[in-house]
Amino acid sequence: MTDHIDRRTTLIGMGAVGLTAAACGSAQVPPPGRKLGYAIVGLGSYATRQIMPQFENCRFSRLTALVSGTPAKLDQYGDQYKIPARNRYSYANFDSVRNNPDVDIVYVILPNALHAEYVVRSARAGKHVMCEKPMAVSSAECLTMINACRQAGRKLMIGYRSRFQPHNMEAIRLARSRAVGKPGLIESEHGFPIGDPTQWRLKRALSGGGSLMDIGIYSLQALRYMSGEEPVSVSATEFTDRSDIRFREVEDRIAFNLLFPSGLIGQGFSSYNSNHNHLRLTGDKGWIDLDPATQYGGQEMRVRIGNDERKVTPPDGPGANQFAGQLDHLSLCVLSNREPIVGGEEGLRDLRIMEAIYRSMKEGRTIRL
Amino acid sequence: MTDHIDRRTTLIGMGAVGLTAAACGSAQVPPPGRKLGYAIVGLGSYATRQIMPQFENCRFSRLTALVSGTPAKLDQYGDQYKIPARNRYSYANFDSVRNNPDVDIVYVILPNALHAEYVVRSARAGKHVMCEKPMAVSSAECLTMINACRQAGRKLMIGYRSRFQPHNMEAIRLARSRAVGKPGLIESEHGFPIGDPTQWRLKRALSGGGSLMDIGIYSLQALRYMSGEEPVSVSATEFTDRSDIRFREVEDRIAFNLLFPSGLIGQGFSSYNSNHNHLRLTGDKGWIDLDPATQYGGQEMRVRIGNDERKVTPPDGPGANQFAGQLDHLSLCVLSNREPIVGGEEGLRDLRIMEAIYRSMKEGRTIRL
Repeated sequence: MTDHIDRRTTLIGMGAVGLTAAACGSAQVPPPGRKLGYAIVGLGSYATRQIMPQFENCRFSRLTALVSGTPAKLDQYGDQYKIPARNRYSYANFDSVRNNPDVDIVYVILPNALHAEYVVRSARAGKHVMCEKPMAVSSAECLTMINACRQAGRKLMIGYRSRFQPHNMEAIRLARSRAVGKPGLIESEHGFPIGDPTQWRLKRALSGGGSLMDIGIYSLQALRYMSGEEPVSVSATEFTDRSDIRFREVEDRIAFNLLFPSGLIGQGFSSYNSNHNHLRLTGDKGWIDLDPATQYGGQEMRVRIGNDERKVTPPDGPGANQFAGQLDHLSLCVLSNREPIVGGEEGLRDLRIMEAIYRSMKEGRTIRL
Repeated sequence: MTDHIDRRTTLIGMGAVGLTAAACGSAQVPPPGRKLGYAIVGLGSYATRQIMPQFENCRFSRLTALVSGTPAKLDQYGDQYKIPARNRYSYANFDSVRNNPDVDIVYVILPNALHAEYVVRSARAGKHVMCEKPMAVSSAECLTMINACRQAGRKLMIGYRSRFQPHNMEAIRLARSRAVGKPGLIESEHGFPIGDPTQWRLKRALSGGGSLMDIGIYSLQALRYMSGEEPVSVSATEFTDRSDIRFREVEDRIAFNLLFPSGLIGQGFSSYNSNHNHLRLTGDKGWIDLDPATQYGGQEMRVRIGNDERKVTPPDGPGANQFAGQLDHLSLCVLSNREPIVGGEEGLRDLRIMEAIYRSMKEGRTIRL
């Protein structure tokens, strides 16, 4: 524990000096040699292909432990990332992570229905928690998770990586600065043709819902972060071909409209049937367009103001990696005792709106929020 | 009357040979020297700047008469287009057009609330009728107009020019041939920042409604012609700043979702506050994108199939002019006694859906059609 405590003390000693910028993921002078240790819970595709390779790009975060129900995965990735045997956990002995000073943060990358349990167990083990989106399968679960972390005095952050993606960050900045005038419409569509009908995403008990919970949440998030407002009403239109073996339990596609207090309208779309990855905010002077908007990479942004249309490329370099930015943001929040820009409350807001979207499509009416 | 009758007889003698292709606006061998005569009713900006200059590009249509309440306009445009004095009408003496063999077709380009009256008067004067969109300010008026033309045995066509615009025609062909797979979503946004607060478009008594009736109808039409289906339900979200002097009487912006029988979802948008002119159909293999989609000119189309994205440019040449294509289509329908592809029933369908959109936004519920 010595190293753990020393690290904390030293950095709390630093105070918040120079750490404020963490809120926008910008460059920091790292305390030499001080990186918080992450345990990854769930060694599926997103964890192993997207997240774990990114720790080498982090300045405040390192991979120190793995949790899986599959011993072969623990062997494979444990060896690959040089994780000592004592830091390889099964789900059965996961709670003993409380005694492991190498682990500061637990990152839960499990099927949606397991998020609540593992976030609560992590907080009770005294660990800070990163939880993949969607935060949970219901707003009630979100409240439980928020309370558990609060009671344990631990940070909770949701894995909304786009908030650390430079094009999206620049788009938000441009929107807020009224670069394209007063916004009237934000459109965002996300989808992909889902394959293997046996996967957990298509089992309601594990996913909590279909495309909206999985990929449409990017559209919802984008409408919210581009607007900077919370919607006052939602109406939704769904179509699902129940004769398609993939869609026996969950929805295929949903179009949803959000009305924001300023009068800004958000048009969102979610699909498990076709590829979509787009975001556009239109103001009375022009528009900001990201296409693709939220993929793992390859973002492109065009901005039109009046008759002038141009490609905008945010500066590259340190802090330009959305995955590392996300991981380091929570580390910095822990180190400086600040709240993440996408904490549990942010995950809860999305769940509440998604529940309203589901209610709207079922009841055929606009739901006031 | 001799010339008039002769022309008819001759062309009916031709039968429908070679005229079938009129339904898609493609090339025709014109009967030498035979052009039907159009009277333009209403000499506003759209008539004088967009329609009247296009007769010189027509093969079956010519401008033969003008109708206006402003003598100075009759003088100016009458002289410019060499319209004889006997073919210059006021609204007061318009009905005497029945005795004018130079006029085969009356094109009504008046404020929306006057469409019904002038279509009915034209039909009763024995003339075929082209009517600008929206067809009228209510579906009840549309029925009256359809019945008047039917009783008079005259053709009625609505001025949906995009159906004769080559990129849109090619997009429809590609969609129907399943070039991008099975369609799941069609998006179309249309809008512009409306200026002069005193114009008739902003007076409900003359316009019948706001942006939806004027520019949003392009989004609605596009969703319908790209789908080739009729929607089964509609839900809509509106925002209008009633403190804006432009929007005392009519709506600013509306987002509306249509559900089609195949499960295809249409997302439409209409605005009097920001510029929009876009159409995209997404299938499970790719998309067809028109941007701009329905402007007077400058259309561009991109098609993506799998990973292959390319610009598609329909062949130029005769028939590639949407305005001339629209004008000649009705002439050919008259000459061959065929029904226009965008007849009164088509205008009626849009009015019924727009009425449902208004009802949905007012009642906050999905309206079944």
